[in-house]
Amino acid sequence: MSALPPFFTDYQALVAQHLQRIVPDRGSHVERAMAYTALAPSKQVRAVLVMLCAELCRGQASRAVPAAAAIELVHAASLILDDLPSMDDAPLRRGRAANHRQFGEATAILAAFGLLNLAYAEIARAYEPALASRLSALVSDAVGPEGLIGGQALDLEATDHAIGFEMLERIHRGKTGALFVAAATCGALTAGAAAEPIGALAAYAKNLGLAFQIIDDLLDVAGTTADTGKAVRADARKTTFVSFSGIDGARQLAAELCETADRALAPFGRKADRLRELSAFVAARRL
Amino acid sequence: MSALPPFFTDYQALVAQHLQRIVPDRGSHVERAMAYTALAPSKQVRAVLVMLCAELCRGQASRAVPAAAAIELVHAASLILDDLPSMDDAPLRRGRAANHRQFGEATAILAAFGLLNLAYAEIARAYEPALASRLSALVSDAVGPEGLIGGQALDLEATDHAIGFEMLERIHRGKTGALFVAAATCGALTAGAAAEPIGALAAYAKNLGLAFQIIDDLLDVAGTTADTGKAVRADARKTTFVSFSGIDGARQLAAELCETADRALAPFGRKADRLRELSAFVAARRL
Repeated sequence: MSALPPFFTDYQALVAQHLQRIVPDRGSHVERAMAYTALAPSKQVRAVLVMLCAELCRGQASRAVPAAAAIELVHAASLILDDLPSMDDAPLRRGRAANHRQFGEATAILAAFGLLNLAYAEIARAYEPALASRLSALVSDAVGPEGLIGGQALDLEATDHAIGFEMLERIHRGKTGALFVAAATCGALTAGAAAEPIGALAAYAKNLGLAFQIIDDLLDVAGTTADTGKAVRADARKTTFVSFSGIDGARQLAAELCETADRALAPFGRKADRLRELSAFVAARRL
Repeated sequence: MSALPPFFTDYQALVAQHLQRIVPDRGSHVERAMAYTALAPSKQVRAVLVMLCAELCRGQASRAVPAAAAIELVHAASLILDDLPSMDDAPLRRGRAANHRQFGEATAILAAFGLLNLAYAEIARAYEPALASRLSALVSDAVGPEGLIGGQALDLEATDHAIGFEMLERIHRGKTGALFVAAATCGALTAGAAAEPIGALAAYAKNLGLAFQIIDDLLDVAGTTADTGKAVRADARKTTFVSFSGIDGARQLAAELCETADRALAPFGRKADRLRELSAFVAARRL
């Protein structure tokens, strides 16, 4: 795997510590199921994106941490749902049994519900009302029928069906892009950023998210379970960017998207170098 | 069925109209699944409770409507989850096929997720930030491991096991009581109420919610599908208030809880008569 940029580890530690505080790893069966996925080691790319965008807008990473944690909670919830028997029926996630394989299907569903709910609780708890309300609205847009839920629904409809490139892009704008955009925007908002930098960071995140998904598709084809922490060749029944464009075409597309992402950073000059390192990492991930 | 108090219909119409505006009944499969349960005819007792508590605290029902709708969205989401094959595997709800029977399991799960998400979106959209943030925090407490999710998890664990009265009460405080308390509290907060009346209304709602659940258990034993809109005798594998205390004992308990609820209204005098009508309706429902 291509090495993580060195600053990554610090941000990951910040958000991992925070998640450990707000997701109790004991108590009831359903609380342990919540912790099982939310606290599993992961790259936390979305959380790092929140904090980098906050810093780029002259905010502090520490102030962005609760928003970063909330975004990761939403992401963890969506992973649990994606893996359910009625959805992708995936046995593995983050290097261990999928949540429903470990805790049973009912508890997994409740845990996903609980993690989404906890994301909203955390936003309301951590921020002053004016900011909390804006962050809540952003997260709900990213989760709703135009975001995660809509993308996942389209993805399920498309399984076993041929779909066009436009539909494929629409699925992943919902499933991946929307939460990346919310992450960047939330980070910038915790720093009190204005509309113009937020727009630039949202454009960056949208393209980065799509590139990230394409690399995921590539890893499914070319990677191993040891690399990805989940079952590979799981997408055989789906149209993916790889089945559409071939391995070389998908690699090329991911690289182009990362370049497009970086172009959106031009107004920030050298201050955005860490975001450029992030996109370089995404583009190079296990190629 | 005992007649609804006459004022009920007006409140129901207010919240039904609002739900029709915010839950689109067209568009994607998952949006139609959301509307299918959220817009199905129902008593909307929780929504009425929100509005009555707002008015009792000198607020306006119209201002409480978005909070009432949000509470009903959360409730609808929980019904979809309860009925899933991995949970109660219930075929019928609100007089028609359960959501997963109509739309498939994956879509039903996404719809439930979408309805919870929409509840938070509606709160952030409808209210000024300071109030929105408090309402969000209240709803998340009512949904989380101490509320709906915790209650449902305990309920699943208790299926096919003998449990004591204390555990039975704990299950239903989570599954039903928590959202009743949130409904009353949210209503009072939309009216800018102080801590003291809020405490009294929360005590009322807690007892009313438990009484409501006991009557549900009675209807499962003594009612028909035409009365309840769902399959009856579905609780055979569970300890219920009826299996615990018998039909007469459960009826007695529900009546006592409604009296306890009403006693919490003493500070409000005659102004709380509509809440008394509500508890009388709950206590008399199909007995």
